Amino acid sequence: MAAVTENTNGLNGTNGTNGTRPSQSSNPYQPVPDFLSNVGRFKIIESTLREGEQFANAFFDTGKFQSPLYNVKSTKSNRPSRNKNQDVLPLHSPPASVEYSLLYSARMLDDFGVDYIELTSPAASEQSRADCEAICKLGLKAKILTHVRCHMEDAKLAVKTGVDGLDLVIGTSSLLREFSHGKDMTQITASAIEVINYVKSQGLEVRFSSEDSFRSNLVDLLSLYRAVNDVGVDRVGVADTVGCASPRQVYDLIRTLRGVVKCDIETHFHNDTGCAIANAYVALEAGATHVDTSVIGIGERNGITPLGGLMARMIVGSHDYVTGKYKLSKLKEIEDFVAEAVNINVPFNNPVTGVCAFTHKAGIHAKAILANPSTYEIINPADFGMSRYVHFTSRLTGWNAIKSRVEQLGLKMTDEQVKLLTSKIKAMADIRPLAIDDTDSIIRSFHLEHERLEEAS
Amino acid sequence: MAAVTENTNGLNGTNGTNGTRPSQSSNPYQPVPDFLSNVGRFKIIESTLREGEQFANAFFDTGKFQSPLYNVKSTKSNRPSRNKNQDVLPLHSPPASVEYSLLYSARMLDDFGVDYIELTSPAASEQSRADCEAICKLGLKAKILTHVRCHMEDAKLAVKTGVDGLDLVIGTSSLLREFSHGKDMTQITASAIEVINYVKSQGLEVRFSSEDSFRSNLVDLLSLYRAVNDVGVDRVGVADTVGCASPRQVYDLIRTLRGVVKCDIETHFHNDTGCAIANAYVALEAGATHVDTSVIGIGERNGITPLGGLMARMIVGSHDYVTGKYKLSKLKEIEDFVAEAVNINVPFNNPVTGVCAFTHKAGIHAKAILANPSTYEIINPADFGMSRYVHFTSRLTGWNAIKSRVEQLGLKMTDEQVKLLTSKIKAMADIRPLAIDDTDSIIRSFHLEHERLEEAS
Repeated sequence: MAAVTENTNGLNGTNGTNGTRPSQSSNPYQPVPDFLSNVGRFKIIESTLREGEQFANAFFDTGKFQSPLYNVKSTKSNRPSRNKNQDVLPLHSPPASVEYSLLYSARMLDDFGVDYIELTSPAASEQSRADCEAICKLGLKAKILTHVRCHMEDAKLAVKTGVDGLDLVIGTSSLLREFSHGKDMTQITASAIEVINYVKSQGLEVRFSSEDSFRSNLVDLLSLYRAVNDVGVDRVGVADTVGCASPRQVYDLIRTLRGVVKCDIETHFHNDTGCAIANAYVALEAGATHVDTSVIGIGERNGITPLGGLMARMIVGSHDYVTGKYKLSKLKEIEDFVAEAVNINVPFNNPVTGVCAFTHKAGIHAKAILANPSTYEIINPADFGMSRYVHFTSRLTGWNAIKSRVEQLGLKMTDEQVKLLTSKIKAMADIRPLAIDDTDSIIRSFHLEHERLEEAS
Repeated sequence: MAAVTENTNGLNGTNGTNGTRPSQSSNPYQPVPDFLSNVGRFKIIESTLREGEQFANAFFDTGKFQSPLYNVKSTKSNRPSRNKNQDVLPLHSPPASVEYSLLYSARMLDDFGVDYIELTSPAASEQSRADCEAICKLGLKAKILTHVRCHMEDAKLAVKTGVDGLDLVIGTSSLLREFSHGKDMTQITASAIEVINYVKSQGLEVRFSSEDSFRSNLVDLLSLYRAVNDVGVDRVGVADTVGCASPRQVYDLIRTLRGVVKCDIETHFHNDTGCAIANAYVALEAGATHVDTSVIGIGERNGITPLGGLMARMIVGSHDYVTGKYKLSKLKEIEDFVAEAVNINVPFNNPVTGVCAFTHKAGIHAKAILANPSTYEIINPADFGMSRYVHFTSRLTGWNAIKSRVEQLGLKMTDEQVKLLTSKIKAMADIRPLAIDDTDSIIRSFHLEHERLEEAS
C-alpha cells in the first residue's frame, strides 16, 4: 500500500517567493517574487534546549536526556529482559541502549542542519552553566547561543562559557514592566546599550529582543530597536510571548521594523492561538531573517513554532532550499527522541510525522491519490523519508491494515508474524480502547521481541 | 496551585477588529475597525460528522460513536467490574455508562452553539442516509447540512433526507480535473447551475464549493463563482484541500472574491502545513463569513481547522461575541468525547485543552503570573472552565504536583489518597516511561476506583 513516488508535488499555486519552483502561468495567484521576503533564505535558531526546557514536562540534565533511537546500535547485552509472565506488552519498551547526554541532542540538531542552537542561561543554575560549556566544546557546525536577561552580570557569566553569541531579552510590555522587572523604557534602553557594547567588545554575536512585543507600545518598541541597531547589534528579536499575534499583525510589524533597522530580525512565536507556524512564515515574507523553533514545538504552555511544522510550511514554498539545507529524513528520529525525553506522545496531527499525515481515506481521495499523489498531497512524504498510506480497510485492526502500518514504520515481518501480531492487537483492544500511537508501540514491541527471539535461536 | 482569576486578559494589543474590547491607545498597532472583517460575526460549520469521518481512525456509526463523558450519569449497575488480580490499571477505563449514538454527538455540537452541522453525503452508504435522516429529526437549533458531490442524483437523494441545506462540491484544480472527475470548466459550471437551481427549487439552502481552490486557475475560479452567485447560491466555498495555502494568499483570494460575489463565503482549511487556524482567521478578516471546523481538527490526513483552536484564536479578538455565543465550558467534554470515539489522545499541545496550555514553569514567568496572570496569558482559562497551573516542583511525580494536577482535572481526593496515588504512579514510572496523558489516565482510573469503593462501603 505504501508507495513512494517522484516529487511532483507543489508545482502549482504554492508560494514561490524567493523559492526554487518554476512559476506556473496556470495559476495567476502564484505570488510574484517579493523583494522583502526571506522565505527562500531563512535561518533557524533551534531552542529545544532553552525554550523546550521551559516545557512543563521537560527536566533536561546530562543524566536525563537520553535515547535509544538515534544512531545508537543496540547490542544484546543491554536489551531489557522480558518477563515471560507479563500479559500485557509494555507500551513503551525500555531503552535498548542509552547514551546519556544533553550533548547528544545538540549533536542531533547540528546534524539536522540548524543554523543556531540556543541554550538556557548559564545564570539559571550551575548545571546550566556546565552544560553550556560542554556543548560549546563539541565543535558543532551550528553556532551556540545562550539566552540571557539583559543584565551585565548574566552577560559576563555567559561570555565565559565559550558561546558564539548571546541572545539578550527584556520585557517591554506595560504589563511586564509593571509586574515583572519594573523598569521604564529609558532604563531598558540604557541597559540594553551597555550590555550590547560589552558583548561586542568580547567579539561575540549579540541579539537584543523585547519580550511580549505585540503588546508593547509600537513607538517605544521602534525607538528601542533603532537605538540598539545604531550601536551595532547583530539581530533584533520580536517575540510573541503570549501567543496573541495574528498573521497580518505580524506582517505589518515586521515590515515596519524592516524599514527601521538594518540588522537581522529574529522572530519567536508562541502557539496559544494556533498561529505559531503561520506567523513565522509571514514574518519571513515581511523581511525577518531568523525563526526560533523547538522540536515538536515544546516550550512554555503549549509551546512555540515546531521545527517539523516549520519544515512542512517552508518546503511547500522553497523546496530546494529546504531539502538542500536540512536533513529532513532525520526529523522523525529527532522528534521521537525528544518526545521520549520529555515523556509525551507525538500528536496524532503533527505535521509530516503525525500518524495520519500521509494517510488517505475517503474513496474519492484514494482513487485520485493512486492516479497521482499530487492531487491530495502538497508535501512528498519521501522528502522526509516517510511513506504514504491509502486506507482501504474499514477497521484499523484488519491484518492488511496492520501489515501496511508495519511497512510504514519501516519494520520487517513475515505475513505469519503480522497475523499473530494482529490477533494480539485485537485481543488488547477488547480489554481497552487503543490509541493509534498505542498500536504503534505494540507493533514495535512485538517486532523487538521477535527480533530478539530470532537472535537467540 | 490552581487559581482562577477574573478576566483581565487580552486588554492590550489583541485584534480588536469588529471585536468588543476597548481600543487601547497604549498600542498603536491595535488594528483600526475594518470594514471587510467578519472576525466579530463569523459562523461555524461544524464538520466532525463529515470531514471528521474521513479521519483515518474514525469509524462512525450509530453503534460505535459512544461516550460515558457527556451529561450521562453513571449508575452502579453498568460500571465495569474490576479484576482484582490486575497489576496494572487500564489506561483508559471502559465506559462507565454508554449512550450509543451518532445522534448524541450532533446534540453535543448543537448544545455548544455551532451554527451548522455538516454530515456525510447520504449517497455514501445506506447507513449514511439513515443517519442523516435521524439527525434531521432531532429538532436541533443548528442547521443540518450534507456535503454532496455536484451531481443531480446525489442532490435528489440528499433533499429527501430532510436536511436544511446542501453543500455542493467539485474539484476545480487541473490535477483534480485530470485525475479525479475529468470535467472541464464549462461542464463544471453547467452542472453547478443545474444542481443549484434544483436545490433552490426545493426551498433548501445551497452552497457551492470548489475543491483545491488554491491550486485552481484564479480566472476560472472567479468566473465560476460569479456564475453561481448570479443564479442565487447562498454561499460559495473556498477549500484548501491539500493544506498548501499561506495566510497572505488566503487574504488576497478571499478579498478578491469578496469583490466578485454578493453571497456568503465559506472557508475550509486543511492543516498539512500548520496554518489551518491562521488561515481561517485571515479569511474572516478578508470578508469570509463561515468557517469549517472539526473537533480536535480530525479529518483527512492531519485534518482541518480545529473547533477548539479556532475558539482560542477568536476569543482573543472577539471576546464577547465568542463567549456570548458558544458554550466554551463544554469544549473539553466534547473533545474528550470525540478523542475517545476515534481512539486518539488529545495532543499535549492542543490549544486551550492540551495538558500544558495553562501551565507555567520558568521561574520568571511563574513570578509574574502570580502577580498578574495577563503577563503571560492571552486567554483566561476560566472562560473555558479550565484552570491554570504554576509549576513549582522539579518532578511531575512529586505528590504536590500530582495534587495540583488532580485539582486541575476537577477530581476530589484526600491528601492520603493523593499520596497513595503518587506512589502508584512512581511505581508504574519505574516499569516504563509515562506520558502526561498516561498519567492523567491513571489518575482518573484511581479516582473512579476509589469512588466505587466508597459507594460499595
